[in-house]
Amino acid sequence: MTELALAAFAAERDVHVIRAPHGRVFAMFARRFDEAGYLARLQRGGVRWLARSDDDFPPLLRAIHDPPAGLFVRGAAEVELLRRPAVAVVGARSCSPYGAQVARMLGRELAAAGLVVVSGLARGVDGEAHRGALESGGPTVAVLGCGIDRDYPAAHGELASRIRATGLAVSEYAPGVEPAPWRFPARNRIIAGLSAATVVVEARERSGALITVDLALEEGREVFAVPGEITSALSRGANDLLRLGATPLTSSDDVLELFGLEQAPAEAVELGPAADAVLARLRDAPASADELARATGLDAGALASALTELELAGIAVASGGVYRAG
Amino acid sequence: MTELALAAFAAERDVHVIRAPHGRVFAMFARRFDEAGYLARLQRGGVRWLARSDDDFPPLLRAIHDPPAGLFVRGAAEVELLRRPAVAVVGARSCSPYGAQVARMLGRELAAAGLVVVSGLARGVDGEAHRGALESGGPTVAVLGCGIDRDYPAAHGELASRIRATGLAVSEYAPGVEPAPWRFPARNRIIAGLSAATVVVEARERSGALITVDLALEEGREVFAVPGEITSALSRGANDLLRLGATPLTSSDDVLELFGLEQAPAEAVELGPAADAVLARLRDAPASADELARATGLDAGALASALTELELAGIAVASGGVYRAG
Repeated sequence: MTELALAAFAAERDVHVIRAPHGRVFAMFARRFDEAGYLARLQRGGVRWLARSDDDFPPLLRAIHDPPAGLFVRGAAEVELLRRPAVAVVGARSCSPYGAQVARMLGRELAAAGLVVVSGLARGVDGEAHRGALESGGPTVAVLGCGIDRDYPAAHGELASRIRATGLAVSEYAPGVEPAPWRFPARNRIIAGLSAATVVVEARERSGALITVDLALEEGREVFAVPGEITSALSRGANDLLRLGATPLTSSDDVLELFGLEQAPAEAVELGPAADAVLARLRDAPASADELARATGLDAGALASALTELELAGIAVASGGVYRAG
Repeated sequence: MTELALAAFAAERDVHVIRAPHGRVFAMFARRFDEAGYLARLQRGGVRWLARSDDDFPPLLRAIHDPPAGLFVRGAAEVELLRRPAVAVVGARSCSPYGAQVARMLGRELAAAGLVVVSGLARGVDGEAHRGALESGGPTVAVLGCGIDRDYPAAHGELASRIRATGLAVSEYAPGVEPAPWRFPARNRIIAGLSAATVVVEARERSGALITVDLALEEGREVFAVPGEITSALSRGANDLLRLGATPLTSSDDVLELFGLEQAPAEAVELGPAADAVLARLRDAPASADELARATGLDAGALASALTELELAGIAVASGGVYRAG
């Protein structure tokens, strides 16, 4: 019996198994299982198989109490990537502009400092964390809650292929397995399991990201929560974690310190005086264009050009008519 | 030698003294000091004197390592108010709409539950905390950093008189003492000293509110910090306190619990469907009117009337073109 037979059996029966079940059903399946043929088909699909018993299997993931039988792996990177120091960045799918901005910044800065950013390819925080890592040229790992051959969510198909171009997509689910709600908590244990630390950016109460946190805590991994406004339902989960004793993350340095790393030096950006004035106002609080015009005294044209300058430099973002410092 | 002579001496010499100085200068002053005449003048100005040695002097303030010689007191409330369970709410003068909103909410909810809200009458967080307490009908205490007869800042003259109508203004500084920068840290020790707990709403790095926190911690008082966005310079002080181990405040319940109190039941508000939809969007993140129209599909007229409904009910606030849930 191999671990691959177990993964193939789980896919065929649509069940979650991590150890060979007793009884005839699995025994018969394993006896009939054509491992060489299955591996050849995987290979034709560009998929590798990394068994739990393989020396290359990531030790942090093997150490959790219910590691998967193995991982299906797609992407340009070596599987060694999964053994490198990694941070999970997780949070709400329908995140706010603030959550998106912080996830992107963390993805970018953590990857630039040499950490592998692990997330779940979901909309919102997950996607932004992956995108940030890609922006800094760092490989990133997407852990899927469906078969390794599926792009889920569909809207992230292009993002998934960019991730695979330098990093990896991994799944415990064999090709053909459809996404299903119950698979996502199981997937979250792999996100937490691959990572020495998990960062929650924005999360509602009782959300999937908090499941990832519970799993990380069970395995004794570090958990960071990003503070947010107490009036925002989207920050309730992260703020509640702070009350329970999670480490507040106020900059990526907090995570890097845990790994003994330092932030890659930021490129100095020269701003014009109008952009400087707008940025000073934005550093205090997000504002609409009207408020920025009022606060800075700039006319509409000068304000628009200052905002464009800040957006191009990546130090201000606009969303829903509200500008924010980056 | 009385404590009142000491306070009068400090005022005349423009020095900060809490114990009788040795030497001739003070001895001569004290011998010449006309206590009865001074008290009569205070009374004519509506000012009471509460000496440190007075039985009515608030025991929490007496317990700090450098209590003032006494407090000059103005306002309609009995000095017994200063012995009631109190919470300091402090923060930035140039706070953001978020900080203002949270300070107001805390002032209102803490006072409604029976706590005395103590603050420094400054612009921004201080003023909003006092206003919130007044809104709920609770007496509030303003601790001045200038002579008890001064309204500082001038813009808060009307607020000061509303505070005195049901609560108290107090100062260790005699009538005539001008505000001076060095008096504000000294004033902050009285804010912290009167209060069993101090809440920091929004504070920049190295700000006066953090001095209040240091004083509260030195005296073993509870310190709460309100989480804010890590991209906001105005939340840096509060978020840094969280990193240092301050208790995160996510609702006024966190403070009330410390005092064994419960929140006064909120009045139920019936909203129309349009206002409901707008509120649901705002609970996730602040937004401009344009974004609210987009998210809810309401036309301009319906949106304006929904926003008015929410603002009148006190559950949404607008500032700088950005709407926020309350």
